[in-house]
Amino acid sequence: MVLDQRALPEAERWIRCETPEQVAECIRTLAVRGAPAIGLAAAYGMALAPDREAAAELLRSTRPTAVNLAWAVDQCRGAPDPLDVARRLHREQHDADRRLAELGAELFGEGTRALTHCNAGALATGGFGTAGGMLRAAWENGRLAEVWVDETRPLLQGARLTAWELRQAGIPHRVVADSAAGSLMAQGRVDRVVVGADRIAANGDVANKVGTYPLAVLADRHGIPFYVAAPVSTIDPATPDGSAIPIEERDPGEVLTGGDAYNPAFDVTPAELVTAIITEAGVLTPPYDEAIARAVAA
Amino acid sequence: MVLDQRALPEAERWIRCETPEQVAECIRTLAVRGAPAIGLAAAYGMALAPDREAAAELLRSTRPTAVNLAWAVDQCRGAPDPLDVARRLHREQHDADRRLAELGAELFGEGTRALTHCNAGALATGGFGTAGGMLRAAWENGRLAEVWVDETRPLLQGARLTAWELRQAGIPHRVVADSAAGSLMAQGRVDRVVVGADRIAANGDVANKVGTYPLAVLADRHGIPFYVAAPVSTIDPATPDGSAIPIEERDPGEVLTGGDAYNPAFDVTPAELVTAIITEAGVLTPPYDEAIARAVAA
Repeated sequence: MVLDQRALPEAERWIRCETPEQVAECIRTLAVRGAPAIGLAAAYGMALAPDREAAAELLRSTRPTAVNLAWAVDQCRGAPDPLDVARRLHREQHDADRRLAELGAELFGEGTRALTHCNAGALATGGFGTAGGMLRAAWENGRLAEVWVDETRPLLQGARLTAWELRQAGIPHRVVADSAAGSLMAQGRVDRVVVGADRIAANGDVANKVGTYPLAVLADRHGIPFYVAAPVSTIDPATPDGSAIPIEERDPGEVLTGGDAYNPAFDVTPAELVTAIITEAGVLTPPYDEAIARAVAA
Repeated sequence: MVLDQRALPEAERWIRCETPEQVAECIRTLAVRGAPAIGLAAAYGMALAPDREAAAELLRSTRPTAVNLAWAVDQCRGAPDPLDVARRLHREQHDADRRLAELGAELFGEGTRALTHCNAGALATGGFGTAGGMLRAAWENGRLAEVWVDETRPLLQGARLTAWELRQAGIPHRVVADSAAGSLMAQGRVDRVVVGADRIAANGDVANKVGTYPLAVLADRHGIPFYVAAPVSTIDPATPDGSAIPIEERDPGEVLTGGDAYNPAFDVTPAELVTAIITEAGVLTPPYDEAIARAVAA
């Protein structure tokens, strides 16, 4: 059963998937989205497959940028019981989220006003949430004052999904146009930027929702810590740096119906702009190549 | 007669104004928008006023950030025939736009790929356009290859108005989400950023549509010239710097219906990030305090 994220926050609609093709369609059309969540969905899709090799190829081809997807499919491909693996990955995701959220929340000072982009909450991971989990843990610890939520054009995952999650958790928040983050920082109204990741390269470069890179540049200019929260499964040691990460281009119609448009779904933030990468294996800080090698090996 | 910019590009709807109150309503609700255009609309509004003092106060109060509005109203307030003044300002706007567009287009290299934000074309000025005028003049001179058009949330003036103008002029363009400008610059696909202005302070700080400041920071990081195109009437020598410019906050409902939101309409770009300010009185370059004092005195 997949909660259809396209219908939120207006409706809570569930989609029943009985074949890998139906799961692939849910991933491709963003009914389920978020790097860890599409990994888990694909794992359950593998458990529904009569022909695992064909299903693996199909599921891996749905979206190119997130690495958890390929990673989760590979975990299931040769397993005696893919359903067992999917369930284990699901549990491990929740534990990893919870752990990294606690570690990340310790980085917040008292009364932190955080800014986040897109959605990296429970909806995006199938667990407790990465960036969203950090915000929840910081709220529980009494360190979070308020969250600025980027709308996140073109699909408005911030305004639709993150705001919905924060509302349910009772966390004070305000939605802003993506382009307002710069003046908020210039006015001293942002203490931390916290985002998730779709893929982290071996050198610490981070692919995440388009609009992440501008936030990192602005945070750098204003001396604001810029945190990336992600499970270790998001790290791809086989990708040397950001230039090797494939960036998905989606339908120009998402940007504007009728005109010419260019619609990259992700961008790459160079490691030098990332203050810390928060994983369940610990808080990674520069030099990232070494910290990442250790985290992946552990 | 006011072309209703809220209805574009779907419909060309005209609004007939017979009182200053109707003109004020058109300005307040953004039927007419763009700093120079609302100045001209207000001037014509003064020509419709039985009581000029009351009309001046009403029209000046409609929107706080653009300085042309107050300037145009003041030009009409004590004049023997406000309609004469409005018509003169209208003619002068067109001449100023045309002149600054020609000056600005000379700053473009061959095959320039320009990025612009919001709308600073003919719709925004009532003339030839400022930033939009530069793009048109550069296209006529054969120096412009393509324009990246920021959607410009929340009201999509880029996607709705600038794309419409460029289409009419036959200029190749693609609309992008505001948050995609960073990765375009990182990929080396932007040669110039060109924007208009709502108010320029005496030190060269520029208030313009929210999202302008992030573009200036990104352009600076990537060594891309950042140009502001504006008539001299946009410069307010009485405003010492950007911190003294009132930033209009608009209805949170523009950002997202139903949730808490914060919706500043403008931001301030510090003079240090502006490569040149292109006016009808010449191309101003740092130090701006001196260049601006000369341009205003001329």
